Amino acid sequence: MNLRELSARRAAWMGGEGPHGDVVVSSRVRLARDLRGVPFPNRADDVARTRAFRRVTEACAGVPGLEDADTWNLDALRSADRDLFVERHLASRDLAAGAGARGLVVGKDETHSVMINEEDHVRIQSVTSGLNPAYSLERAVEMDRALEGRLEYAVDDRLGYLTACPSNVGTGLRASVLIHLPALVLAGEVRKVHRAVAGMGLAVRGWFGEGSAALGDFYQLSNQRTLGSPEEDVVSRLTKIAQRVLELEMNARERLRDAPARRLRVEDRVFRSWGTLLHARLLSVEQLMSCASDLRLGRWLGVLDVPADRLTRLAIFGQRGHLGARCGKSLDGDEEARERAEWVRSELSAST
Amino acid sequence: MNLRELSARRAAWMGGEGPHGDVVVSSRVRLARDLRGVPFPNRADDVARTRAFRRVTEACAGVPGLEDADTWNLDALRSADRDLFVERHLASRDLAAGAGARGLVVGKDETHSVMINEEDHVRIQSVTSGLNPAYSLERAVEMDRALEGRLEYAVDDRLGYLTACPSNVGTGLRASVLIHLPALVLAGEVRKVHRAVAGMGLAVRGWFGEGSAALGDFYQLSNQRTLGSPEEDVVSRLTKIAQRVLELEMNARERLRDAPARRLRVEDRVFRSWGTLLHARLLSVEQLMSCASDLRLGRWLGVLDVPADRLTRLAIFGQRGHLGARCGKSLDGDEEARERAEWVRSELSAST
Repeated sequence: MNLRELSARRAAWMGGEGPHGDVVVSSRVRLARDLRGVPFPNRADDVARTRAFRRVTEACAGVPGLEDADTWNLDALRSADRDLFVERHLASRDLAAGAGARGLVVGKDETHSVMINEEDHVRIQSVTSGLNPAYSLERAVEMDRALEGRLEYAVDDRLGYLTACPSNVGTGLRASVLIHLPALVLAGEVRKVHRAVAGMGLAVRGWFGEGSAALGDFYQLSNQRTLGSPEEDVVSRLTKIAQRVLELEMNARERLRDAPARRLRVEDRVFRSWGTLLHARLLSVEQLMSCASDLRLGRWLGVLDVPADRLTRLAIFGQRGHLGARCGKSLDGDEEARERAEWVRSELSAST
Repeated sequence: MNLRELSARRAAWMGGEGPHGDVVVSSRVRLARDLRGVPFPNRADDVARTRAFRRVTEACAGVPGLEDADTWNLDALRSADRDLFVERHLASRDLAAGAGARGLVVGKDETHSVMINEEDHVRIQSVTSGLNPAYSLERAVEMDRALEGRLEYAVDDRLGYLTACPSNVGTGLRASVLIHLPALVLAGEVRKVHRAVAGMGLAVRGWFGEGSAALGDFYQLSNQRTLGSPEEDVVSRLTKIAQRVLELEMNARERLRDAPARRLRVEDRVFRSWGTLLHARLLSVEQLMSCASDLRLGRWLGVLDVPADRLTRLAIFGQRGHLGARCGKSLDGDEEARERAEWVRSELSAST
C-alpha cells in the first residue's frame, strides 16, 4: 500500500452505519503502554527508539485485526505526507510532528492500529462507526492481550500500567466519541453542554482531539481519568453521557424541524453550502468542514439526499494531506484551496 | 396593460445592446417643466393637482414615443404596487411616496415617459441602453417640443424654465448614466473616482438615484447644474466624463484579468455568487444585486455565459414590487426573501 492508495481508502469507521451514525461519527479507544526497561520515547536516544520501534512492529504480526497490516515509519515520510495519518485519525499531531523512529501499524480496514513511539512506546487504538465505544474497547483489549504475550509492559502492582505522562497511568485508557452537534450550535446551547459534560469529568475537544478547535460543529467527548476505575466503567460512563448529549442534540434538531421560520433559515443555509461546494473555485478546509456539517444536518432534515459516507469522505479526503497525496506533491495557499474546490466539485457531481 | 403584465415586460433599455453595454446599463435624460399659472404641485390643492394631472395626460396623447402609451394614476395604487414603477426607473421615490393625483404616462417600450405632479407638473423622461445620453436628449427634446405646443410652460426670459426647486431652473435638465464599476470597487479605487467626478461638477449616486445607496457596484453619474449651459454641452460633458470612468473601469478589469492570483479569487467569487443564486432559499435584494454584479463581471471575464439582458432582468424583476405584482400580493420579510430566491432559481434554470 502506498500513500496514494491510503488516501483513497475508505476506513470502516467512515461508513456511517454504526449506532446513531447520523449524529455520532465514531467511537474510539486507545490504551497507552510502555516497554519495561526501555526509556520512555521522549527520554530514549535514537538507538533505543529504533530498537523499540522494531520490537513493537514485530510483536504486532499476527495480533487480531493486524493480520496483513501495513507498517509505516513516519520518520521516512515528508511532513505533508505525515498529515495524511493525522487526518485519518490514525496518528496524533504529536506523532506526526515528532522526530526519530516512530510510526504506525494499521490493520486493513483501520479498525485496529498501533501508534509506536508517540509519548508512549505503544498506543493500541481501535475505532468504529457510530456510538459504540464498548465495541472499540473489546477490540483494543484483544489486541492488548495478544501484545502482552509478546512484549514485556512496564507495570506497577499498585498503580497499574506506567506511562510517560502521569495522566495516563493506571488503565492507560482514553475512550472518545466524535459527535456532530449542529443544532445545539445553532440554538446557542453548545457551551452549556460543554460545561455540563466537563462537570461530569469528561473533556470536550475539537475534530483533531487534544488542543484542536471545533471544525464544522464536530466535537470529541472523552474521559479524563485513567486511575481508579475499571475500563468497562469508564466506557459505560462515556456512553451514557454521550447518549445524553445525543438526546439534547436530537431535541434541538426536532425543535428546529418543527419551527417553520427557523427551519426555512436552516434550509437556506444548507442549500447555500451545497451551492458553495458545487461552485466555489477556492475552498479552505474550515469552510469545507462547515459546509459538510450543514449538509449532514440537511440530510437529517430530509432536505438533501447525500449519502452519509460521502459526507464523511468529504471531511476527511478533502484535507490537505489527502489532497497532496492524490496530487503527489505538497500544496500550499491558493493551490491547496483550488485543488480542494476542484476535488469537492468532482466528488459531488459523481454523487448526484 | 395591468401591473402583472408591466412587471413582466422587458423595457428597451434593459436589453444591454447599447454602446458599452457591458459596463454602462443605461443613459437617461429628464426635463423638468411646470405649467404657467398653476401652483407647483407641493403648493397646489387637490383640485389644482387633479386638473394639472388631467391637462398633462391629455397633452401627452400623440406626443412622439407616447403613441399607445399607458397612463398610470399612482394615487389609485397600493404602496407596494407603486414600487414597481420606482424599480423600473420610471417613477422617483418621491413620486411613489407622494399624495394626491400624480402619475405617469409611459410609452410602449419605456424609452419615453412623463412623470406628472412629482416636484414639478411635468418631467419628461427618456432612457436608452448603454452609454448614449445624446440619444436620450434627442428623444426628450422631441417630446418637449410636442408638449410645448399643447401646454403653456412657466418660462422666464432671463432664467429659462421655472421649476419648483431652484436647482432645476434654467434647462430643467438632468442627464445621467448608470454604470457598473465592480473592478474599481475590487481594486479599492471607486472612492477616488467619486472624488474626481464630483470635482468635475457631477454627482455620484446609487442605483435608485438621489439619496440611494450603491447596490451591486452600480453607480449613477449625473450633472448638477441646470443654469448657464446649453443642454447639448451638459450631455456631451457627462458623456466625456462617463467615458473616462469607463476607461478606468476597463483598465481595472484588464489588470484583474491578467493577474492570475487575483483573477482566481474573482472567479471564485463569481462562481460562489452563481451557486448562491442557484441554490439559496432566502435572498435579500442587496444580495441579489451583489450576486448579479458578480455575474456581470464574470460574463465580461468569460467565466460564465449568462446573457446580459437576463442579468438586468434579475436586478429589476427580482425587486420587491415586481415579485409582489407577479404574486398578486404584497410580500414582507421571509416571504419576500423566499419568493425572490424561488423566482431567481426558476429564472436561471431557464437560462442555462
